[in-house]
Amino acid sequence: MEKSHMSVFLLLVALSCALAKDAPKKETKETKETKPKLPQTLSRGWGDQLIWTQTYEEALFRSKTSNKPLMIIHHLDDCPHSQALKKAFAEHKEVQKLAEKFILLNLVYETTDKNLSPDGQYVPRILFIDPTLTVRADITGRYSNRLYAYEPSDISLLYSNMQKALKILKTEL
Amino acid sequence: MEKSHMSVFLLLVALSCALAKDAPKKETKETKETKPKLPQTLSRGWGDQLIWTQTYEEALFRSKTSNKPLMIIHHLDDCPHSQALKKAFAEHKEVQKLAEKFILLNLVYETTDKNLSPDGQYVPRILFIDPTLTVRADITGRYSNRLYAYEPSDISLLYSNMQKALKILKTEL
Repeated sequence: MEKSHMSVFLLLVALSCALAKDAPKKETKETKETKPKLPQTLSRGWGDQLIWTQTYEEALFRSKTSNKPLMIIHHLDDCPHSQALKKAFAEHKEVQKLAEKFILLNLVYETTDKNLSPDGQYVPRILFIDPTLTVRADITGRYSNRLYAYEPSDISLLYSNMQKALKILKTEL
Repeated sequence: MEKSHMSVFLLLVALSCALAKDAPKKETKETKETKPKLPQTLSRGWGDQLIWTQTYEEALFRSKTSNKPLMIIHHLDDCPHSQALKKAFAEHKEVQKLAEKFILLNLVYETTDKNLSPDGQYVPRILFIDPTLTVRADITGRYSNRLYAYEPSDISLLYSNMQKALKILKTEL
């Protein structure tokens, strides 16, 4: 029971992340005042040894041409939930290994493509896209109100969802 | 006369860059076979000490909220013209200093926004965007067939165009 209680609490925190997203002026101000460590990296700490694409356009192109599924992680630097998931993602050796089989993109700013927010824009939010450029809306986490959200404790579910994204692809080919 | 002859030659090379852009599969293959040095940087060598935005969406947001003009450099890694301009851009101290006053974005993959290709998609191609999110189509280089192209020898023109982008903005405010 304590665990499910914790989940409710964590979801509340996740909600505050979504709110933080709506007030990104603060972030801009911070960037102005305290310059980030340079040069900036595309991994943003989600796995420095992995190859990350820069933009959604690049990611779609690479997914299509390489026939690898695309994994898009929406997150925010000032969201504690995003940070916690990032830590779990970066430290999980199997996840990092499996991630090599994907075209990878992590985004702080939402794209204009509404297909990437089937149940709204919130962070952290992970979506898989097939090389045919179809959003895999069927690959979800465990929260009914935020289907594509993951907590650090869901890292095993995320791993199996990654396998699912790869497996179904093979079956279809 | 020899100089103008050279320009014609260089424009022909630029044309081959545009063609290379249409066959980016080669690039993908290379990425697979020889992994780039990691972690990748957002500057891509256009100025490691400058702050670069990752995506067009981020760049537009930051331009609007910071009231700084946006400078977008379209280029390709396997285009000798892009590489030469990059070298000139990165080594020009005044240009690098002035670039701090802009929101900066360098892109290898085209966005879906047609406003960013007023006279076609080619590289290298530099466009300025006002914080009101209007493309400054009036700020051009010296080539009538590729209005937004610059050669390394045009770096002074680029510098004055950057000043123009900043100056007119102030007048308008």
